[in-house]
Amino acid sequence: MMEINSGNKRCARKVQLLVTSALLLLQSFLIIPEIFAEESSSVHIVYMGDKIYHNPETAKKYHHKMLSSLLGSKEDAKNSLLYSYKHGFSGFAARMTKSQAEDIAKFPEVVSVIPNGIHKLHTTRSWDFIGVHHPSSKTVFTESNLGQGTIIGVIDTGIWPESASFNDEAMGKIPSKWKGVCQVGEKFNSTNCNKKIIGARWFLKGITDHTKNLVLGNNDTTEYLSARDAIGHGTHTASTAAGYFVENANYRGLASGLARGGAPLAHLAIYKACWDVPVGHCTDADILKAFDMAIHDGVDVLTVSLGIGIPLFSYADQRDTIAIGSFHATSKGITVVSSAGNSGPISQTVSNTAPWLITVAATTIDRTFPTAITLGNNLTLWGQSIDNGKHALGFVGLTYSERIARDPSDDLAKDCQSGSLNETMAAGKIVLCFSVSDQQDIVSAALSVKEAGGVGLIYAQRHEDGLNECGILPCIKVDYEAGTELLTYIRRARFPTARLSFPKTVIGKWISPRVASFSSRGPSTLSPTVLKPDIAAPGVDILAAFPPKGSKKSSGFIFLSGTSMSCPHVAGIAALIKSKHPTWSPAAIRSALVTTASQSGTDGGLISEGSTNKAADPFDMGGGHVDPNKAINAGLIYNITTEDYIHFLCSMGHNTASIRKVTKTTTSCNKQKRQALLNLNLPSISIPNLKRDTTVMRTLTNVGNINVVYKAIVKSPYGIKVRVEPQILKFNSENKVLTFNVSFISTQKLHGDYRFGSLTWTDGNHFVRIPIAVRTIQFEY
Amino acid sequence: MMEINSGNKRCARKVQLLVTSALLLLQSFLIIPEIFAEESSSVHIVYMGDKIYHNPETAKKYHHKMLSSLLGSKEDAKNSLLYSYKHGFSGFAARMTKSQAEDIAKFPEVVSVIPNGIHKLHTTRSWDFIGVHHPSSKTVFTESNLGQGTIIGVIDTGIWPESASFNDEAMGKIPSKWKGVCQVGEKFNSTNCNKKIIGARWFLKGITDHTKNLVLGNNDTTEYLSARDAIGHGTHTASTAAGYFVENANYRGLASGLARGGAPLAHLAIYKACWDVPVGHCTDADILKAFDMAIHDGVDVLTVSLGIGIPLFSYADQRDTIAIGSFHATSKGITVVSSAGNSGPISQTVSNTAPWLITVAATTIDRTFPTAITLGNNLTLWGQSIDNGKHALGFVGLTYSERIARDPSDDLAKDCQSGSLNETMAAGKIVLCFSVSDQQDIVSAALSVKEAGGVGLIYAQRHEDGLNECGILPCIKVDYEAGTELLTYIRRARFPTARLSFPKTVIGKWISPRVASFSSRGPSTLSPTVLKPDIAAPGVDILAAFPPKGSKKSSGFIFLSGTSMSCPHVAGIAALIKSKHPTWSPAAIRSALVTTASQSGTDGGLISEGSTNKAADPFDMGGGHVDPNKAINAGLIYNITTEDYIHFLCSMGHNTASIRKVTKTTTSCNKQKRQALLNLNLPSISIPNLKRDTTVMRTLTNVGNINVVYKAIVKSPYGIKVRVEPQILKFNSENKVLTFNVSFISTQKLHGDYRFGSLTWTDGNHFVRIPIAVRTIQFEY
Repeated sequence: MMEINSGNKRCARKVQLLVTSALLLLQSFLIIPEIFAEESSSVHIVYMGDKIYHNPETAKKYHHKMLSSLLGSKEDAKNSLLYSYKHGFSGFAARMTKSQAEDIAKFPEVVSVIPNGIHKLHTTRSWDFIGVHHPSSKTVFTESNLGQGTIIGVIDTGIWPESASFNDEAMGKIPSKWKGVCQVGEKFNSTNCNKKIIGARWFLKGITDHTKNLVLGNNDTTEYLSARDAIGHGTHTASTAAGYFVENANYRGLASGLARGGAPLAHLAIYKACWDVPVGHCTDADILKAFDMAIHDGVDVLTVSLGIGIPLFSYADQRDTIAIGSFHATSKGITVVSSAGNSGPISQTVSNTAPWLITVAATTIDRTFPTAITLGNNLTLWGQSIDNGKHALGFVGLTYSERIARDPSDDLAKDCQSGSLNETMAAGKIVLCFSVSDQQDIVSAALSVKEAGGVGLIYAQRHEDGLNECGILPCIKVDYEAGTELLTYIRRARFPTARLSFPKTVIGKWISPRVASFSSRGPSTLSPTVLKPDIAAPGVDILAAFPPKGSKKSSGFIFLSGTSMSCPHVAGIAALIKSKHPTWSPAAIRSALVTTASQSGTDGGLISEGSTNKAADPFDMGGGHVDPNKAINAGLIYNITTEDYIHFLCSMGHNTASIRKVTKTTTSCNKQKRQALLNLNLPSISIPNLKRDTTVMRTLTNVGNINVVYKAIVKSPYGIKVRVEPQILKFNSENKVLTFNVSFISTQKLHGDYRFGSLTWTDGNHFVRIPIAVRTIQFEY
Repeated sequence: MMEINSGNKRCARKVQLLVTSALLLLQSFLIIPEIFAEESSSVHIVYMGDKIYHNPETAKKYHHKMLSSLLGSKEDAKNSLLYSYKHGFSGFAARMTKSQAEDIAKFPEVVSVIPNGIHKLHTTRSWDFIGVHHPSSKTVFTESNLGQGTIIGVIDTGIWPESASFNDEAMGKIPSKWKGVCQVGEKFNSTNCNKKIIGARWFLKGITDHTKNLVLGNNDTTEYLSARDAIGHGTHTASTAAGYFVENANYRGLASGLARGGAPLAHLAIYKACWDVPVGHCTDADILKAFDMAIHDGVDVLTVSLGIGIPLFSYADQRDTIAIGSFHATSKGITVVSSAGNSGPISQTVSNTAPWLITVAATTIDRTFPTAITLGNNLTLWGQSIDNGKHALGFVGLTYSERIARDPSDDLAKDCQSGSLNETMAAGKIVLCFSVSDQQDIVSAALSVKEAGGVGLIYAQRHEDGLNECGILPCIKVDYEAGTELLTYIRRARFPTARLSFPKTVIGKWISPRVASFSSRGPSTLSPTVLKPDIAAPGVDILAAFPPKGSKKSSGFIFLSGTSMSCPHVAGIAALIKSKHPTWSPAAIRSALVTTASQSGTDGGLISEGSTNKAADPFDMGGGHVDPNKAINAGLIYNITTEDYIHFLCSMGHNTASIRKVTKTTTSCNKQKRQALLNLNLPSISIPNLKRDTTVMRTLTNVGNINVVYKAIVKSPYGIKVRVEPQILKFNSENKVLTFNVSFISTQKLHGDYRFGSLTWTDGNHFVRIPIAVRTIQFEY
């Protein structure tokens, strides 16, 4: 979270849907910074941990009193206060100067003071692909009754309530535990809630402080002062998690079929904390209030497709508001699912790494959009496209960017960057461009080609998952090999021509899933003993609901790619599991998901990852690819209590006093528990610094048949001896919870990088598998 | 190769040592292009293939005559002509307009007209690491008599002849076949050649045409109008290939030891074609002349650490001058070794992919430079550094960039970009910066920190192989995990402090080799049936000779990283093999290298690659990591003749007429040979488009004991059935050359990406292994 000065318009540039390209990111680097005024006041969050007052008004009064004593007057306190957090935890957000923030941090009740930073936002074949459908046999879908009775909270950009996905005809009644409201606002009244959208709230105070002008009465934005979704991201994620069945959903005829969310009978509770200023802005103060209210309202599952970039700020420092909010949510039994981030394939980029979060990586599904390029010599090459507009082209001239460049020696021309092409030389032609850096994308290249009079774009680029629509002309993505073949043809032909076909929707022909190139990768830099991401789910070219845009008749569905899209898939599945197993803890639900995840693709081979085409490892996809039908019948569970998380925080170096502030408990950070970093009962084992040997403890809870015997199967990481003790676990009516040890011995004296393995417990029916990651460290120079 | 207008100074920015950072590359994108004048004249290469005249003067006269007829007068032709190529092949370089170039392309003798594009340039522990040393037993070093009698040609930036590495005391006499000269020039006279540097030439006409001012009499450049090396790249590569023994070589005390090239008794022939304008510029016309003269002079091996970026231009189009020059060199028995490029880890980026080239990827060695960071709380973290200047620091203050930023909300500050830090707040402190993009590097960050008064830099970044010296202050590279740990300490400590130690030189502690993150990756986009790169060799933090710079007493050695450094390693080894087996063809030498390359690292596990830490595959390292001791005793050889390469060109779609122009042969592209793309007798099999099944033919030549029986061992790619027929090869005095077939059957109906395997022939002593890559294509939409 970055501290951003109010009225700093430049900041708006930094924030964007993570589904957009690196181009904007580049632009933000090129703007010269203004001087930061030391004593300007900005929003800070004063966090005081788990001090819940029976009467919320008492809490609010107390917050006021603290703030008054800091600022000197009740009037100032009233003007300064944005939010009082009082349901899930205690604290408030208020405007103050840096030195006031330093002063209030010294108050004994205060755990930490957090500058109000910025978060970014990070369909429907995907459900069939992962097996959530109606076959004749028993599946997760039938067993869970489609998620009936559960409530999924969505912290995002709001919702487009008129979308067919949110029809409530088939919905059951609103659960009696529900305490939320339907907050009215601009173009959103109480009738916009129904039995599907049972509640909606919006949180604007933090963002308003940053960008007052942009949100309020700015003509450039289409934003609504209500829970109505101006961006579409929240509508997409909500419909992915819990959209009801919609026949014939498609995007311009592509991917046509029955659309639906993972839990079509689950209810939705909307918490809008991200705003169109210009796009995908969310601040800590608003996000934290969204968590506070979701806890109050009684949601079962929260889906949070937001995150910072590389996670340089940490839940250990209580500066990561998603970690804080989700800690309190989890301790109240709410399963919180979050996106891993879109900073891959670079290692150590995974965000949302708190051990109580379910962190979701993104994968491809088995649906592709092959598009034929037929050359004048009758050869056909294939690319991928979702550009299915009215661009019918016959055979037209084909050229490549350097041939029509203003200056052929210019690398900008190869890339088809803005202004690099001669204004008329592309007239009526299809242009081939080669991406040579990640500062250019297909949509910008299409704009350059259009400006130069071109009628089509073939864009040769490195492998990158996810398709973009160019809109203004047909654009087709090809790899460098096809690009080179096209170039050779153009050079040799006297009059090179080509015809671009419309894309086709093809299912089941490509090996899948594959971990998406953009999906952020582990290990976690903050707590490498917590293996992240936890799991992978579909997040590439996902078709889901979207607000109708412009004057064209919109189908109400579009394609988006990102871990933002994979996150609500897992949230939907978590709701199905919660529906079937209402007493399961968030950790139990996570364990069921991780231990049953799949390792193999549609060809039976190992799942690969998109950037290198090598076998994916746990830092790409955690336990593997989500398998809902197995997760609902997990057999054994690695459970974790709130107290276990507290011991983990002890091990991370927090002291009893600071932890008591956060958690209300009387737990002490005693010494033996301090050694427990590795012993948090996660459904994974990650040892970042094995010297000679170490032993890790885990505990399994039987949730299947009462009398059952499980046997351990170990796949050791290379160079490591692994021993499980005992190797047999006999569960019965008296022994429902059993503990075992896993010892790791390094067989070498070399310093290396992580090597991977797994531990699987099986009774012959269930295969309860956890991933293992071990790095040997020999810093004895 | 890009067509670049003469006098276009902007182009100079684009060219750089590939060892420098992406920052400069970015800068070149930001400069707005000038309009390219259509009819300005620029250098073009008129290539006429293998028409060798017995009297070179006849060729030159003929070239003159052609040019006169084009330009209209003898005078104009004389002024226009830069080079006449007449030794290895026929052609010339001359200034002409675009339309004149189009006209001359229509002359019947002309194969192609190539614009004069730009190429870029792409110690001593490495030799011990790969086993080229003096043990008591028989090794490549003793068997080859240290490369005695062979001549290695180096096409590069020239040489610093006074370097101790080029001492000729122990050298044998100059081979009688040598026909080269020692061309005198600025600060380079005939005494600068000796029995080590037996020849030196320089080629300036192509580059002069581009950048007249810069080379001739420009005060900003330290360039010499001679073979003297102003940049150092050529001195480094030449000493890596064939430097003589130098005791106590080191860089500021680091990596101290006995320096030497791979073939210390081989002779060097220097061909300077790359110039300091500002750095690492080489044009096609000069490179082609260097090849022409090297063929004339009689070198045995050529090392060419140059290349274009992503290989969008192709030898098929006869536009890649390295491919053209090396084709003629290879057909005359010269082994040409080239660098794969530094555009990794992105797939499809390998350059120099012609099938007759040995294309070399880069790996790490087992030497590291760990550097301790001791914190005020006594915790020690480790980074890597080669900054060993006089920067002794005790405990001083430690801070991080955002805390001392002009604007803490600015991402530029996180990165420590220029101007982002407050001018005084770093005074006397060590600063922690986090790299968040590849537009910033440690050296630039050090400059920002220095400007803000800082005394040290800790730079947290994604994994990237190769260390840079910051010079102005000590800089230490750490990963994001150590960076996060440092950040947590700084945030929590009241007065955070740290002490930076000097780097240590540590050998043998880290698992190695690992394919370098920057090393360009396959597959080849132009001819995916030719598996590239061929092989990997050390190219990270290589210590080798360098011109003394500045007034400081230079050790004459520095560290450089790049495939530029791995290329001369393989060239040195090729010279050793040539010395032992003088009759082996270039293809035989390559086969011996590839089939004996190693698959495992120092821990016995599979060699990994640096960007993902996953097992390296053939697109990372070809056959594997070079193993000279095994290569010299290869057992069997996959040989290739010039005629085989011609059939390959036929298969690529060239017709008989155009090939006859290039090659002087009378070979016809007959139909059955057209199917031979997969049957070129390479020491690898790459099938980019397997539908159902295909069969590939290979031929083995026995170069070991006469009577010997080999058996095939196959490791099939996943999803592919592989059959070898026959499975046993019996060599004897009558059967020295045997042929076998390998059939591949896809067992699935899915479209996927490449999967890998291998085929190994063994007699129990030799393991002659080739890599296999197969991609199934099922485009039946």
